Amino acid sequence: MTGPIVVINPNSNQAVTDGLADALSGFQLQGGPAIECLTLAEGPFGIESQADSDLVVAPLIDLVKRRGDAGAFVIACYSDPGLEACRTISAVPVFGIQESGVLAALARGDLFGVIAISEGSVARHRRYMRRMGVLDRLAGERALNMSVAETATGKDTFAALERTGRKLVDDGADAIVLGCAGMATHRSALEHSIGVPVIDPTQAAVAMALGAVLPG
Amino acid sequence: MTGPIVVINPNSNQAVTDGLADALSGFQLQGGPAIECLTLAEGPFGIESQADSDLVVAPLIDLVKRRGDAGAFVIACYSDPGLEACRTISAVPVFGIQESGVLAALARGDLFGVIAISEGSVARHRRYMRRMGVLDRLAGERALNMSVAETATGKDTFAALERTGRKLVDDGADAIVLGCAGMATHRSALEHSIGVPVIDPTQAAVAMALGAVLPG
Amino acid sequence: MTGPIVVINPNSNQAVTDGLADALSGFQLQGGPAIECLTLAEGPFGIESQADSDLVVAPLIDLVKRRGDAGAFVIACYSDPGLEACRTISAVPVFGIQESGVLAALARGDLFGVIAISEGSVARHRRYMRRMGVLDRLAGERALNMSVAETATGKDTFAALERTGRKLVDDGADAIVLGCAGMATHRSALEHSIGVPVIDPTQAAVAMALGAVLPG
Amino acid sequence: MTGPIVVINPNSNQAVTDGLADALSGFQLQGGPAIECLTLAEGPFGIESQADSDLVVAPLIDLVKRRGDAGAFVIACYSDPGLEACRTISAVPVFGIQESGVLAALARGDLFGVIAISEGSVARHRRYMRRMGVLDRLAGERALNMSVAETATGKDTFAALERTGRKLVDDGADAIVLGCAGMATHRSALEHSIGVPVIDPTQAAVAMALGAVLPG
Amino acid sequence: MTGPIVVINPNSNQAVTDGLADALSGFQLQGGPAIECLTLAEGPFGIESQADSDLVVAPLIDLVKRRGDAGAFVIACYSDPGLEACRTISAVPVFGIQESGVLAALARGDLFGVIAISEGSVARHRRYMRRMGVLDRLAGERALNMSVAETATGKDTFAALERTGRKLVDDGADAIVLGCAGMATHRSALEHSIGVPVIDPTQAAVAMALGAVLPG
Amino acid sequence: MTGPIVVINPNSNQAVTDGLADALSGFQLQGGPAIECLTLAEGPFGIESQADSDLVVAPLIDLVKRRGDAGAFVIACYSDPGLEACRTISAVPVFGIQESGVLAALARGDLFGVIAISEGSVARHRRYMRRMGVLDRLAGERALNMSVAETATGKDTFAALERTGRKLVDDGADAIVLGCAGMATHRSALEHSIGVPVIDPTQAAVAMALGAVLPG
Repeated sequence: MTGPIVVINPNSNQAVTDGLADALSGFQLQGGPAIECLTLAEGPFGIESQADSDLVVAPLIDLVKRRGDAGAFVIACYSDPGLEACRTISAVPVFGIQESGVLAALARGDLFGVIAISEGSVARHRRYMRRMGVLDRLAGERALNMSVAETATGKDTFAALERTGRKLVDDGADAIVLGCAGMATHRSALEHSIGVPVIDPTQAAVAMALGAVLPG
Repeated sequence: MTGPIVVINPNSNQAVTDGLADALSGFQLQGGPAIECLTLAEGPFGIESQADSDLVVAPLIDLVKRRGDAGAFVIACYSDPGLEACRTISAVPVFGIQESGVLAALARGDLFGVIAISEGSVARHRRYMRRMGVLDRLAGERALNMSVAETATGKDTFAALERTGRKLVDDGADAIVLGCAGMATHRSALEHSIGVPVIDPTQAAVAMALGAVLPG
Repeated sequence: MTGPIVVINPNSNQAVTDGLADALSGFQLQGGPAIECLTLAEGPFGIESQADSDLVVAPLIDLVKRRGDAGAFVIACYSDPGLEACRTISAVPVFGIQESGVLAALARGDLFGVIAISEGSVARHRRYMRRMGVLDRLAGERALNMSVAETATGKDTFAALERTGRKLVDDGADAIVLGCAGMATHRSALEHSIGVPVIDPTQAAVAMALGAVLPG
Repeated sequence: MTGPIVVINPNSNQAVTDGLADALSGFQLQGGPAIECLTLAEGPFGIESQADSDLVVAPLIDLVKRRGDAGAFVIACYSDPGLEACRTISAVPVFGIQESGVLAALARGDLFGVIAISEGSVARHRRYMRRMGVLDRLAGERALNMSVAETATGKDTFAALERTGRKLVDDGADAIVLGCAGMATHRSALEHSIGVPVIDPTQAAVAMALGAVLPG
Repeated sequence: MTGPIVVINPNSNQAVTDGLADALSGFQLQGGPAIECLTLAEGPFGIESQADSDLVVAPLIDLVKRRGDAGAFVIACYSDPGLEACRTISAVPVFGIQESGVLAALARGDLFGVIAISEGSVARHRRYMRRMGVLDRLAGERALNMSVAETATGKDTFAALERTGRKLVDDGADAIVLGCAGMATHRSALEHSIGVPVIDPTQAAVAMALGAVLPG
Repeated sequence: MTGPIVVINPNSNQAVTDGLADALSGFQLQGGPAIECLTLAEGPFGIESQADSDLVVAPLIDLVKRRGDAGAFVIACYSDPGLEACRTISAVPVFGIQESGVLAALARGDLFGVIAISEGSVARHRRYMRRMGVLDRLAGERALNMSVAETATGKDTFAALERTGRKLVDDGADAIVLGCAGMATHRSALEHSIGVPVIDPTQAAVAMALGAVLPG
């Protein structure tokens, strides 16, 4: 049997990791690989800048090296920190959630939109999507302009998601990616509210990991 | 619980459908959706041209309409016949295997290669990948130049796959998509032989379908 | 002498075919090929969805096969249904009106705009133009939001065309394509009104067909 | 009735103009516009560099201004010298033969190839095609490596065209553009020999001009 | 020692040349190449159209040929007239200011904006940037809608630059190119006012020329 | 006066830093900014992988923060490690040498080629150039397949550079970028040998830095 799908939350906020485990509980199937969610103890409390993202690469590499038993890794931060470096040193597939979320959206709509937490990450994500070569499919990315903490706990989050999602649909998006590891609880309700598929990127990455490790 | 993932073989060759069921047996997990493989009785024995591909759309639409119980559909022919039409008339997600196979490859390598059965399909696939907007990631597509029947049964198939896969790696591919619904049995051995990830597109589509229908 | 340019209206509305014949009467020149406009009896009354478009391919192929005397074919529906399939089975050139209309516009302006009949076709056309590889030249596509019947008969059509055309010019378009086979009567007046070249796609396709069949 | 289609040979070699008139004789149709081929007396004997091309713009503009009776202009040099400038000062459509030839090829194949006279023009043409935004459809451009004079008169020209055309087909081209105003006499024979459509760019431009000036 | 960097103002307005010399005085360093600003006597008083731009190529080529002592040339008109022709005939590097300004902006921000003098040049510049292959990095180009003379002397120029620059920042630009040879005096103040890097294209071209001619 | 241009060698090999200082001595001009070359003591002896590149970001950020007196920074490793992060935290311009080298090449030729030290960096560079949006201008990248140490000292380096550069010219390159911080000593001789401009990326970055900091 394949080893577990190890989902790494590269920030040190255990509540985020717990949320990931919750969002992925439906993907734990009998006969399938275990899905194990870990907190990167050395990470910052939140990853909100390019520097934050770069600085977790060193401990991420260490963690990947330590977990030689894994069947696949998912790096569960929307900046996909250390993705290329971890791929180079790992013998098993490594998935990033931005990459996986975007690719999953491309199978659900012709143009996709992204809901970012903060304005500051929009340019960083655009550079990444240009590197992926998928900008011709992007309707737009718009920010909620809330902190990660607010989106996790705040009661106004869903209303902001709806408002932002509807603007992206007006921009032409027929599928939406949640641009953060921590918004999965709203996915299904948002999808019903705005009427187009909504992708949680961590679930998308785990689905891709299942495709890579299931026997076939 | 979600309805089954209905995988439709749009040609009328039951042996191909049986091969699909076999290749997908590892994706049938307890607690997950059933995966049901169907033969499109009205399809031709093989889909080898643009006309063949267009002419199965009518019965495909009928089948999708009849299966209102499905949780998701996978159209298991690498031409992705009727994909857009079925999406328009279906209330649940519909996946094409060319689209899914290519997207899965984009999560495994920077440049992907495609192994086509016949030279005649290369231009058709290129038009499709241009429509997807992913040509900047394509290392190349090369044909085995065998009929579908030969690839299914012939003993020389694996050697041809190796030869063609190695050429694509020389072209720069660091992930390979099998450009046909019927080559899954060779996937794992080919991956070990040529040293880069090899994607079976039907497995990739079913993994995407799991991501869309599993609760989360 | 070359055989006739056979212009096929793939819907079964004879009034549309009559309009095509009228719009093309200026292209019937002595010494040049006959231009023959046909109604596809098996087509729906109007082609308004991807499924409509896919379902006319079978009778289109039959018609093309029956007309072995043709010098060239023009498929006169803006979705270009069956274009690739007909090309595969025909010994003479086959032109689609979306493709020809867009290409003609590229010779008249740096950025082109498209006036669609309905919002629902905009995404379908965008996928097609992405496949053509011409999105870098598209200023935008905007819909009249009228039914085909309304645009053919309604007195408000011209005002809607002017309004939509002016918005596209504001978007940067310096040439406009009429995104439907049935708006040719308005072409010349619209061009004078909005001040940029306006392309009727069927006329554009017939001009391309002339270029292909005239001796030279 | 519309004024004539004025085809300007911007070099001063009358033999080239005579060849153009010959190649376009089939486009002179009763009831259609006259097609008038002119030599630009002020042009160099041949246009073989960027400087040659730039230096004919001044007399070209003068000629276009003098011919206020024209219904359309065609600038019959594959560098499309002065095309944008002439468009700015002319009240009627102006066509370039590189632009028109490439666009006509896009309606005949998915990937096109170009046969250039000399290696030295390949980079210039590529810049132009990049400006057109059509490089995703280019299979390649290859040079005959003959002088304009040699191609016009030399008995080895056809063999060189065949050799070069076949290489482009191997590169993936399914339509070929003759990258020069003076190779029309070989068009039809080359098309039969190599088995894919071959476009004479001047004929393509005149066909586009017919589409622009015929009443409709 | 290398010859001078010869900066050619291709219009005949000596005040513009004096402005260039002033803007470049900081680049005259001891031990480095002389920077010599010349007026093209044969040029028009201002270059405001494609025809103006094409018609200066002949005297530009003559000037470049006469100055065989130059270490590098800069053509200081934002249309980059004659750039390719001068490169072909010159033994030393030739820089255009649009090209250099855009490239310098690409090293300062992910998306750049351009401030044009007049609306009429926007399409011309876009064709040029498409030819450069950099449109995926363009946030937008917006016009001041002032004549060259007004921008040089008018007291309202800075306010117009601020207003236009801020709109480009709203469009997503994080670096701005001044789309004219004559706005350098405002560069530094504009940069401080709008908070993103502002590039004077002539300075950018001279910096590139320094990189090409300094010993190393 | 502006502060110095601080050129950081992010590996800990002082010989490389000394080579940089040597290659940049011609850029030290009286009246211009000082150019100061530093070794990043915390860096590895050579940066040869994605992980090496990611792991120097932390000390790079620290160094940039400590040098608040700098007028501009150049990160002198061809992987451009930490470039985006340093830009975010620095008040002055920060240049990467891959980015600057490529941009400088775009001003010298229509298609550029890159000479990489090792095959292993080609895919990493391609991802970076795709992110830059310049792949339509890339003729190709080819590796010397020598270690950094060998290229610095080995007597066979120049022959390998010539061989590789000529292949890139055959691929269509009309300008070449040296894809490493340590090959500047060969730049001029290579340029003369292969007949197209050769760009040393560190010199290109310092020239861009001069353009950003010189008064104007």
